[in-house]
Amino acid sequence: MTEKPGFIDEIAFNDDGLVPAIAQQHDTGEVLMMAWMNAASIAETLATGRVCYWSRSRRSFWRKGESSGHVQRLVELRYDCDGDTLLLLVDQTGPACHTDRRSCFYRAVRGGETVEIMAPEQP
Amino acid sequence: MTEKPGFIDEIAFNDDGLVPAIAQQHDTGEVLMMAWMNAASIAETLATGRVCYWSRSRRSFWRKGESSGHVQRLVELRYDCDGDTLLLLVDQTGPACHTDRRSCFYRAVRGGETVEIMAPEQP
Repeated sequence: MTEKPGFIDEIAFNDDGLVPAIAQQHDTGEVLMMAWMNAASIAETLATGRVCYWSRSRRSFWRKGESSGHVQRLVELRYDCDGDTLLLLVDQTGPACHTDRRSCFYRAVRGGETVEIMAPEQP
Repeated sequence: MTEKPGFIDEIAFNDDGLVPAIAQQHDTGEVLMMAWMNAASIAETLATGRVCYWSRSRRSFWRKGESSGHVQRLVELRYDCDGDTLLLLVDQTGPACHTDRRSCFYRAVRGGETVEIMAPEQP
């Protein structure tokens, strides 16, 4: 059992007890992905230094990279003025996206059309 | 009435018809804020080039900077693998946060304590 971090009282969890968390590569500034956390996954993340989300579909912890090896080491956790969004500065090993792209945000809208701006990484 | 952009069918809106949108300063990579959009505010944003969110509290369009002058010019709209989060690359005039800080993410958790890492900008 991990201890409840003090700042957690300032986090405005939604009705499902979740808060969105943006993962950003700490040195390059790339926005890698957005996922959800609950109080327990935040506590685990701070305790271990490895990012652990809450999977809404599986209704369980989602220890990022547990099966793929594409872990996220936590560099710093920040939160916003309303306390309803987290920003995780991370060091991402390999691709963050399950499509093997570095970032989940690999599609851009240009001239009204969707353009893929990022290719899957080679293993 | 703005025309519905084609890619909108790939966006997975939640039960309230909303999708989270992360705003990132296009050149520095700063993550400025996170807010929500619906299909109509996305269409307006693309049509005008000025970011328009949906205010969940006021239940109305939130044309960023309309009263403060702290507008966000849209540089590029991107979306993620699941289509359930938007990433807006923007050019932010002045502070993005209503506390007059450049970014809403001005609090960091360091050594278990909350630290303010960003001061309000002087007007």
